[in-house]
Amino acid sequence: MSDLVARAEKIARAEKLDAADELAHQRERFVLDDVVYLDGNSLGALPANVPGRVEDVVRRQWGELRIRSWDESGWWTAPERIGDRIAPLVGAAPGQIVVGDSTSVNVFKALVAAVRMAGEDRDEILVDATTFPTDGYIAESAARLTGRTLRPVTPAEVPGALSGRTAAVLLNHVDYRTGRLHDLPSLTSAIHAVGAIAVWDLCHSAGALPVGLDEHGVDLAVGCTYKYLNGGPGSPAYLYVRSTLQDRFDSPLPGWNSHADPFGMRTDYAPAPGALRGRVGTPDILSMLALEAALEVWDEVSVQAVRAKSLALTDFFLECVASYVPQGVVESLTPSAHEERGSQVALRCGNAGDVMKRLIERGVVGDFRHPDVLRFGFTPLYVGFGDVERAARVLGEVLGPLSR
Amino acid sequence: MSDLVARAEKIARAEKLDAADELAHQRERFVLDDVVYLDGNSLGALPANVPGRVEDVVRRQWGELRIRSWDESGWWTAPERIGDRIAPLVGAAPGQIVVGDSTSVNVFKALVAAVRMAGEDRDEILVDATTFPTDGYIAESAARLTGRTLRPVTPAEVPGALSGRTAAVLLNHVDYRTGRLHDLPSLTSAIHAVGAIAVWDLCHSAGALPVGLDEHGVDLAVGCTYKYLNGGPGSPAYLYVRSTLQDRFDSPLPGWNSHADPFGMRTDYAPAPGALRGRVGTPDILSMLALEAALEVWDEVSVQAVRAKSLALTDFFLECVASYVPQGVVESLTPSAHEERGSQVALRCGNAGDVMKRLIERGVVGDFRHPDVLRFGFTPLYVGFGDVERAARVLGEVLGPLSR
Repeated sequence: MSDLVARAEKIARAEKLDAADELAHQRERFVLDDVVYLDGNSLGALPANVPGRVEDVVRRQWGELRIRSWDESGWWTAPERIGDRIAPLVGAAPGQIVVGDSTSVNVFKALVAAVRMAGEDRDEILVDATTFPTDGYIAESAARLTGRTLRPVTPAEVPGALSGRTAAVLLNHVDYRTGRLHDLPSLTSAIHAVGAIAVWDLCHSAGALPVGLDEHGVDLAVGCTYKYLNGGPGSPAYLYVRSTLQDRFDSPLPGWNSHADPFGMRTDYAPAPGALRGRVGTPDILSMLALEAALEVWDEVSVQAVRAKSLALTDFFLECVASYVPQGVVESLTPSAHEERGSQVALRCGNAGDVMKRLIERGVVGDFRHPDVLRFGFTPLYVGFGDVERAARVLGEVLGPLSR
Repeated sequence: MSDLVARAEKIARAEKLDAADELAHQRERFVLDDVVYLDGNSLGALPANVPGRVEDVVRRQWGELRIRSWDESGWWTAPERIGDRIAPLVGAAPGQIVVGDSTSVNVFKALVAAVRMAGEDRDEILVDATTFPTDGYIAESAARLTGRTLRPVTPAEVPGALSGRTAAVLLNHVDYRTGRLHDLPSLTSAIHAVGAIAVWDLCHSAGALPVGLDEHGVDLAVGCTYKYLNGGPGSPAYLYVRSTLQDRFDSPLPGWNSHADPFGMRTDYAPAPGALRGRVGTPDILSMLALEAALEVWDEVSVQAVRAKSLALTDFFLECVASYVPQGVVESLTPSAHEERGSQVALRCGNAGDVMKRLIERGVVGDFRHPDVLRFGFTPLYVGFGDVERAARVLGEVLGPLSR
């Protein structure tokens, strides 16, 4: 009986929260069904304006204008134009972001360039030991190619590990597994205090919470666009190079798109000024212009509003889970303090792979991370409080019998 | 009067050649208008089946299946699956090509891996001095990061420049500017004779003529897919790693997609077996699956038939130009010998930039390469002999008055 009362209370709360939600109507801008989609931290849902835009890019820009579109449809300048569209979402003034390549490739550019900025006498690169693996693999390659030593440390260990030997530090703003938000301002300050270069991976924070790249003096940053930015599967990543460092950005991938005079077809390389020197080869237009359409939602939404709702959603989810799931069956890996939480909740759970399968069968889509983590991502643009209550309830239904 | 007779003869010849052309009906598979499109060596025309495929990828695979498409729609395996589709076009058995990233990024992977295969005692990289610039810039970066010396030489000078110091040689199969076809079999043999690694850039040959990677023992190769393969603007490039060398392929960009167990999320990098170790980050699905659709035309067309028509088209174009353009006004940079010709004709010409503008205004689309080159690319899948006659005639009309 008390279960029913608790549930009625949660449902009533969800209804009130949804009714007061100023972002609620943004859901109409996405293609959704009756599934509770809590995997936007892996692949954002389809924005409703994207299919029409892509069709125009394919049929008219490519099919009719063909080669003329490089100028007439703005293809050539898309990497920096779309970079400027992402800039306000991560607290960057225009002219510091270019879009293109994968996150892995951008990590490589950023880290090799960072080591070169730091100078010859600094022989160590620090990398988040709990990072999404690709950052660690690429950091190892960057260290090997630049003759530096890679030292994996947890973000908490970074301040103690920094020294005059540190060339660069690669950190994640939000941990992909636990959803923990790291303290970008203070870590960046600590890195700068020893004269090293701070490189941040924003994959799990951009579009979910304020980043403040300019404000906090971040040197270099990378991020993907297919999570909270809803750019589509494998949509191009981006690279931020702080304006004051752009003249010193010496790319290990100096493709012709980063040349000061790309159509001069010169034998000698001369880097373009500004963020453009982060470009490499010919930009991937279909994916890039799908992303550009997906970003239009931000014309009327602020990151601050998104962050406020995100915290309310994850708070409410943790509360519902505590109420619906028998005690001791799951353990939240996501910090309860707001200042340490991204926009996902990670629950450690026995048989997590099977549990996620059952959730998905019952219309609640999160994902499973080896070996024992259930991840639930909350995209405030299209997830509501009713969704949250339902997800936690279904989780309780799936786990309840299992735990008896 | 003799001009009119000559022209009548050319038009009659074009009609006969078109009537006998077994590839003529392939034109229906592309979206074309009344423009003579001779810029397929820069951006291939839109295949008619691509818009529908892209719409399905966007609306159903992304919009409805969302994250499930990584498995259910075959997104995850697309790089190697589409690589296997390109393989027969370049004379490669399956399992040696992966699609992804830009040509520039693939040149970097190939060249650094080549230097590592060649061993510590080889300190020189040779690069085609007449190459499309990006290859030279990236080769310079690869040399710098691996501590080798980069030595630019013309392809003709390669045999004389090879030595026991040579680690790797990066060459273009067809020169982007002149359309000259280099002798891949004999240059590869010469490179192997000194124990060096041969890396070929196939951007301007794949889909236009037989390449024979396996047959000629090429070690590594890269190419783009937006020219004669019609994959769309900035569609992903590909990387070929000869099967016998895959175990020694040590990538400078070891992203998580090239890991033996990518979803194990392991801290230590262990490369996947086979061509997969050429992958880097999350594949760019929209562009990749557009390319997959574009490649379907090759199910019923052979590269040999395309090559035969390509030579007939460029022969006929050179003949028409000789007939219609006043002598001495243009000079062909493209070799007249078939074994030295790709699928484009490059004409050196005064005021080439203006001339190309006028051609385009009159419905003949080629492109201009700084400072004095008119490029005309001939894609046998959709260019006919009537188009060729018209292009040469319009060129004559544009240049005739100018030359008086």
